[in-house]
Amino acid sequence: MKTSETVIDVLIKNFSSLPGIGRKSASRIVYYLLNADKNFSDTLAGNIKLLKDSIHSCAVCGTYTDSEVCGTCGNPARDGNLLCVVENPQDIDIIESTGAYEGYYHVLKGLLSPIDGIGPEQLNVFPMLKRLEEGNFKEVIFALNPSVEGETTALYIQKMIENRGMKVKVTRLASGLPVGGDLEYVDRMTLTRSLLGRTSV
Amino acid sequence: MKTSETVIDVLIKNFSSLPGIGRKSASRIVYYLLNADKNFSDTLAGNIKLLKDSIHSCAVCGTYTDSEVCGTCGNPARDGNLLCVVENPQDIDIIESTGAYEGYYHVLKGLLSPIDGIGPEQLNVFPMLKRLEEGNFKEVIFALNPSVEGETTALYIQKMIENRGMKVKVTRLASGLPVGGDLEYVDRMTLTRSLLGRTSV
Repeated sequence: MKTSETVIDVLIKNFSSLPGIGRKSASRIVYYLLNADKNFSDTLAGNIKLLKDSIHSCAVCGTYTDSEVCGTCGNPARDGNLLCVVENPQDIDIIESTGAYEGYYHVLKGLLSPIDGIGPEQLNVFPMLKRLEEGNFKEVIFALNPSVEGETTALYIQKMIENRGMKVKVTRLASGLPVGGDLEYVDRMTLTRSLLGRTSV
Repeated sequence: MKTSETVIDVLIKNFSSLPGIGRKSASRIVYYLLNADKNFSDTLAGNIKLLKDSIHSCAVCGTYTDSEVCGTCGNPARDGNLLCVVENPQDIDIIESTGAYEGYYHVLKGLLSPIDGIGPEQLNVFPMLKRLEEGNFKEVIFALNPSVEGETTALYIQKMIENRGMKVKVTRLASGLPVGGDLEYVDRMTLTRSLLGRTSV
């Protein structure tokens, strides 16, 4: 019986199209904003606008940054021997959160997928090979999802590195039991990998 | 090892403070926005800003609207005999979604809570009594949460209506078994109410 659509309805629709937000959550958020301080929603709106206006790809690794070169690439204190290859910028945050890696990163911006027409030209692969050729990296670590696309991408790029005669060690993240997991619930493929990749106690 | 906080980090924090959104969801949303069309995030930002600039309380019922009087209050086709009293503007959407109600609404903007210092003066109670006095409503329906605060608020306002000698029927939503529910899992209080309020088959 509503006569016309208000900005409330439109904004609920906008929020619903964000990942992980359904219509009910979107409605809760919009009413929360209506009750919240004007300052808060202005800041939120301003930062959403600023995000697209100020963030672009790092000239070196391809991650999102607001300067020409991102904070990691511009940090000379990191380990110049190691290059970690990831699919997306958000993967860098996840690896950084472990505190177990001190090297540099390279963002592929996707994975190879011939079915979807995504070859190495569509990804950030050739700039990576150039970095390897011009830099002094001793090891490339593929930190890609343990999926068919992830494995294919790692194998393909490893072949390219080999074909170009580069003397760089290529590794990937270990597959195996998740810490705190239960043998009973681990799939066969993972168990096989964890047997093949067993480590001394 | 990050040198400074980017707008990505700030925006993740902004989104995390919205209801129902944790740090991980907030991060997913921000990276989604980074990959999305600039048009989409501009629209989202613009509508968030517009929300606070254009939405205010309806002069009649107190719900959120972008005009002086909301679409429901300004609709002469609705049933002028019925006034439904709700706690928040979002409750109107919920009741409208049933399609079972054709009357008008009044938003209390909260419930009585003496412990928190919320008396009738802090709520939209007196304008409601004025509407009842000046209008031709035959029935006031309290559609408040079946909580202690909801019951107290309904009883208190009903007393006020009585004391002013208004000839208006006061009702509240039925308590009882949820449709599709199971007798076994219904609490004693609800079952008692559903017995007292039993209806003929």
